Amino acid sequence: MTTVSTADPRFFPKPDPISAEELARISGAELVLPRDGELPPGGFTGIGPLQEAGPTEVSFLDNRRYASLLDETRAGLIIVGKAFANRIPAGSAALVTSSAYLAWSRVARRFYPRPEARQGQHPSAVIDPSAIVHETAEIGPFAVIGAGATIGERTIIAAHAVIGDSVVIGADCRIGTHVSLSHALVGDRVTLFPGARIGQDGFGFAVGPAGFETVPQLGRVILGNDVEIGANATIDRGSVRDTVIGAGTRLDNLVQIGHNTTLGRNCIVVSQAGISGSTELGDRVTVAAQAGLIGHIKIGEGARIGAQCGVMSDVDSGADVIGSPAMPFREFFRNVATLRRLSRRASGNTAAAGDVASDKD
Amino acid sequence: MTTVSTADPRFFPKPDPISAEELARISGAELVLPRDGELPPGGFTGIGPLQEAGPTEVSFLDNRRYASLLDETRAGLIIVGKAFANRIPAGSAALVTSSAYLAWSRVARRFYPRPEARQGQHPSAVIDPSAIVHETAEIGPFAVIGAGATIGERTIIAAHAVIGDSVVIGADCRIGTHVSLSHALVGDRVTLFPGARIGQDGFGFAVGPAGFETVPQLGRVILGNDVEIGANATIDRGSVRDTVIGAGTRLDNLVQIGHNTTLGRNCIVVSQAGISGSTELGDRVTVAAQAGLIGHIKIGEGARIGAQCGVMSDVDSGADVIGSPAMPFREFFRNVATLRRLSRRASGNTAAAGDVASDKD
Amino acid sequence: MTTVSTADPRFFPKPDPISAEELARISGAELVLPRDGELPPGGFTGIGPLQEAGPTEVSFLDNRRYASLLDETRAGLIIVGKAFANRIPAGSAALVTSSAYLAWSRVARRFYPRPEARQGQHPSAVIDPSAIVHETAEIGPFAVIGAGATIGERTIIAAHAVIGDSVVIGADCRIGTHVSLSHALVGDRVTLFPGARIGQDGFGFAVGPAGFETVPQLGRVILGNDVEIGANATIDRGSVRDTVIGAGTRLDNLVQIGHNTTLGRNCIVVSQAGISGSTELGDRVTVAAQAGLIGHIKIGEGARIGAQCGVMSDVDSGADVIGSPAMPFREFFRNVATLRRLSRRASGNTAAAGDVASDKD
Repeated sequence: MTTVSTADPRFFPKPDPISAEELARISGAELVLPRDGELPPGGFTGIGPLQEAGPTEVSFLDNRRYASLLDETRAGLIIVGKAFANRIPAGSAALVTSSAYLAWSRVARRFYPRPEARQGQHPSAVIDPSAIVHETAEIGPFAVIGAGATIGERTIIAAHAVIGDSVVIGADCRIGTHVSLSHALVGDRVTLFPGARIGQDGFGFAVGPAGFETVPQLGRVILGNDVEIGANATIDRGSVRDTVIGAGTRLDNLVQIGHNTTLGRNCIVVSQAGISGSTELGDRVTVAAQAGLIGHIKIGEGARIGAQCGVMSDVDSGADVIGSPAMPFREFFRNVATLRRLSRRASGNTAAAGDVASDKD
Repeated sequence: MTTVSTADPRFFPKPDPISAEELARISGAELVLPRDGELPPGGFTGIGPLQEAGPTEVSFLDNRRYASLLDETRAGLIIVGKAFANRIPAGSAALVTSSAYLAWSRVARRFYPRPEARQGQHPSAVIDPSAIVHETAEIGPFAVIGAGATIGERTIIAAHAVIGDSVVIGADCRIGTHVSLSHALVGDRVTLFPGARIGQDGFGFAVGPAGFETVPQLGRVILGNDVEIGANATIDRGSVRDTVIGAGTRLDNLVQIGHNTTLGRNCIVVSQAGISGSTELGDRVTVAAQAGLIGHIKIGEGARIGAQCGVMSDVDSGADVIGSPAMPFREFFRNVATLRRLSRRASGNTAAAGDVASDKD
Repeated sequence: MTTVSTADPRFFPKPDPISAEELARISGAELVLPRDGELPPGGFTGIGPLQEAGPTEVSFLDNRRYASLLDETRAGLIIVGKAFANRIPAGSAALVTSSAYLAWSRVARRFYPRPEARQGQHPSAVIDPSAIVHETAEIGPFAVIGAGATIGERTIIAAHAVIGDSVVIGADCRIGTHVSLSHALVGDRVTLFPGARIGQDGFGFAVGPAGFETVPQLGRVILGNDVEIGANATIDRGSVRDTVIGAGTRLDNLVQIGHNTTLGRNCIVVSQAGISGSTELGDRVTVAAQAGLIGHIKIGEGARIGAQCGVMSDVDSGADVIGSPAMPFREFFRNVATLRRLSRRASGNTAAAGDVASDKD
């Protein structure tokens, strides 16, 4: 519908040009000048993918499967890891670093800073008189802020977010559109993407004589500093203790976190994964997409749970598991290979059994 | 709670009667008169399932597992494939076609057309003065339309939908309740079901010295004409390129689409499936429920990904894969059979060992 | 961020003290006095986990893996099953019962009753003049109630919920924030958690000459009494019949229910599970997390579907199945063991074969 593919100025304000030296400085990369040509005198004007970036734009190579794009790119400045430094086209400058993706991230952010809170409260918002909303916060249209809630400095409450009674939200947070947040204490620099549901009752019931009886859910949700929660993700509050998401941890869209669950610091939980109640994750655990963890188990720090993995028991620190039920990566792929081999052989034997010749063996 | 099971008039306005000839015409089916009886003189008055439809109602048979219902139905007109034409009860007319489900769809739509946009803007909606809203559009209660957004002819923005700054929405779209839509260009006749989250940041971060650093997400979401997105589905915007959903493609509820992903035309993605970032699907790809695709792979046109499949590498055009990791359908079910056989044999051997002891009794 | 871990008084109003006798009465448990010490004269003041509860608080042991906590707890009153009655510390009283979790549930509820409806309609709500809202109902900020809708006694419609035209909701229901509810008849004491999407079009389309054509979805959603639906769960309305959720059935967060599906009474569907269209579940069926059921099958009453199970065909009453494709629990775990054994043996053989060759070097 349009030829602009990165940073459409309708959505991302056009930045002022930035010099290569400045980009090298903020990214911590080494600037390598073009072998044939010069830096654009006015600086760089934006970013783009290798296929599309022009002589005043910055691009990057992070995934080696796209390395052949280096041969054709017209990008004026390319961020690359050291392994690709000798493949930069003659006319392009390079920012060479051992952390290309991190450097790219910082360069892109330098061009396109996050929008800041626009101080003020939309007149349509319903804010309880007992709520304490910092004067620098931004409260969007139709937001609802409950009794006794606290909203910190420069925090953005987007349109249609509902903040329950007594919820505490720190500074520099971004609470997305249509978020429901209750029974929660939220740190600083926390981002909740649209439609996240945080603090509702956990899934707890007892079997009574006439059917299920709801077990009161009397804990909270604690979100540490720098936590991010994806769109339409769900985090239930605890029943007798808190549900805790450690500082720096990031959850992707549509992730489910059951009640009383504890995640450590700097964990990653990818889209559509689910962690059942009372399970505990150490720091730096990675849970890949669509994995599921049963309740009441412990995952050691730094463990990696593969995509679609079904984890039914504790996982050691640093372990890599995959499969349903979960097993070490190596064992899983050995199993896959074994079954394929046996299955092919069986299929061959079945065919052979029909042969008269095989009877003679 | 009531005996009406199809088209409760409280929810679907009662239609005027329609003649069998008209229904044959709009469905492209052949009208076969009752062998014993006559068409209802006043035309047909509605639709219903075979078990419940009466002499002035239309029903259909699409799934052969329900064929025995033909023996008992009282439906006055039955839409069937050619294979079932000889099983129509003597008192019923039939619409015989090679596309029974399509014919049914058109007949049902003829009775119950989609509600049209009720031109106008609810006084509670917050519409930025710079937004361009076509005068024929319907804007529901508490909708929010951002600065510079464009809303096309006869498009419905339902209650509580939030349309971000500069978003472009074409004609005849239906944006459901509580939808969040930002950083997006939307074609014509697009339907977004309630709670869909479109255009939020992709899940992108780099590992920095003090924890994760967010990578700016500077692409958009492009939804082609006739796209449908299910309830509570999530589509992240691109990071350096766009996330693109091709014309005619339909996503079911709770589907996740990662950043930079491209889906071709007329693809189907069933509920709770997830497609990771930068993966590319050709045209007419089907992804069944709860399947997961890793990032940076290509799925050829017309490929079919089975339910709960875990796709870790490219899939050829026209291929059928299932399993986790994905493999051809045939291989998957052969593996299942092989493992069952080996497992029973192993179990039998164990039992046989026990039999030695019992032989002594 | 605070040391209170259960029932933070900011979120849960501090209860009046309750006597041990009263707690025994409402829980149906046997009160056992402390062997060494006395009951707190003023009664019990609240609840807490074993690690944290003090001498005037009630705690419980439900999961035997935490039994060692009994040795250290300071809780004044402990609810336990009979098997643990002899492990109660000398200073603590006990409530001994054969249903510890149920007793706990009732005790906790006695301390912390559910908030009741605060009769009245927030002035920001948009309520169609033809809607019938009981005077005892609570209608929150920005709620939208459609034409002809009915809201029963003491029902709470939370902030931002949207109730479609003609929807009927019974008494004592709790409709959460940001819920979308249309084309539905809802019984009494039904709870819908935030962001649930109920009554939107099912995923139905026919293949026409120019692409997919939407099949009209002309059924409803029927929710029986005491149903609970989790946050961001989705239930599509039927196409030719109704989608029905039987009385007492509970769905967890992010569950998907396709059109025309029928769930019996007192079923449990755990988070992220999905049930495809036209499938029928009997009473008391349990579907564990992330399981998926294809359409048009029947699950007998009392069947249990394991986590991540992929169910492709009917399941007998009372059966336990797991795996993808689904199989009996016993067979699944036998298969896992068989494959592990064969795989290790193959790996051993390969290693041995390689060793022979390398010995020759």
